[in-house]
Amino acid sequence: MPNYIEPIEKLIRQFTKLPGVGSKTAQRYALTVLSMTEEEARAFAQAVVEAKEKVTVCSICGNYTDADPCHVCSTRDNSTICVVQEAKDVLAVERLGEYHGVYHVLGGVLNPLKGIGREDIRLAELFQRLTGDVKEVILATDTSAEGEATATYIARFVKQYGIRVTRLAQGISIGSELQYADEVTLSRAFTNRKEL
Amino acid sequence: MPNYIEPIEKLIRQFTKLPGVGSKTAQRYALTVLSMTEEEARAFAQAVVEAKEKVTVCSICGNYTDADPCHVCSTRDNSTICVVQEAKDVLAVERLGEYHGVYHVLGGVLNPLKGIGREDIRLAELFQRLTGDVKEVILATDTSAEGEATATYIARFVKQYGIRVTRLAQGISIGSELQYADEVTLSRAFTNRKEL
Repeated sequence: MPNYIEPIEKLIRQFTKLPGVGSKTAQRYALTVLSMTEEEARAFAQAVVEAKEKVTVCSICGNYTDADPCHVCSTRDNSTICVVQEAKDVLAVERLGEYHGVYHVLGGVLNPLKGIGREDIRLAELFQRLTGDVKEVILATDTSAEGEATATYIARFVKQYGIRVTRLAQGISIGSELQYADEVTLSRAFTNRKEL
Repeated sequence: MPNYIEPIEKLIRQFTKLPGVGSKTAQRYALTVLSMTEEEARAFAQAVVEAKEKVTVCSICGNYTDADPCHVCSTRDNSTICVVQEAKDVLAVERLGEYHGVYHVLGGVLNPLKGIGREDIRLAELFQRLTGDVKEVILATDTSAEGEATATYIARFVKQYGIRVTRLAQGISIGSELQYADEVTLSRAFTNRKEL
């Protein structure tokens, strides 16, 4: 099968490394880069290199940062730790503007089928943080089976220290119609029903 | 609204310049870059810069090339010119392995509504190529209204030189069901029906 000339093929191969990008999409992206000015293409490449150079991971919470410890860890109330799976989940919570504690990014969840065990996510780092200052650990892992199992595992461990452990409420999404709620969500909404 | 730290935001903004990439997808791409090794990220950036540096446009056919004139223009039968809208269309035809002539990339089609006129696409360059050697011009622009109009315009001009002008056949796609063919396609398939 004929291909583009080598520099274009090389760029297409690089774009296919991005999540969800197949060869057709990568081709569109590569042709877009070719239609940029040299300056724009340089700025693009520069942004990739700079992000990699300047961004590190906070040694305390595991979130992306350009200073260690990160801004959140060094300035916020560290008596509450919100445990999330990925760095992008931190942003989701931050958008609320309601949470004033610190975070702990696990970098994944326990998944025996994929061979992801306790040593593969930042669990030891979390447990090290459970000093006298910590009053509450909020478990905000996904509601997937693995997210639930990871939350249960952490909860059991944290409770030994007499620290309060909470999990984000689960139920029907606000604004959604009952008929479209999946069975597991609906069942959990019944179990967790609240007295009015 | 809180954001990622500046180097990440910068990278996200760069990714949103790619076609069809919104802020959520750009965010996913940026976080993927952060999870690459420094070497991988550098290779990515390098591919962007190199593609821009090494790839030029063939002064004859307008296709992307790393040598001018391009490999196709300098080695193939130039008595047949296949006229296409974009460089990626060349690849689509090349994949067939059946066409042995040369190409002419217009870089767009006439579109008065978008203000794209005769000077904005490579029409003059095409007409300059209509020397005594050229025996046939195959019009392979898209079957959109603009693609059709552009083909008609070119056909009228080329015919003045007594050169054969053809258009790719239009009809029902091979392997598709009649019931799903759109009306325009079906109508054209009737008009262009062939004696068996």
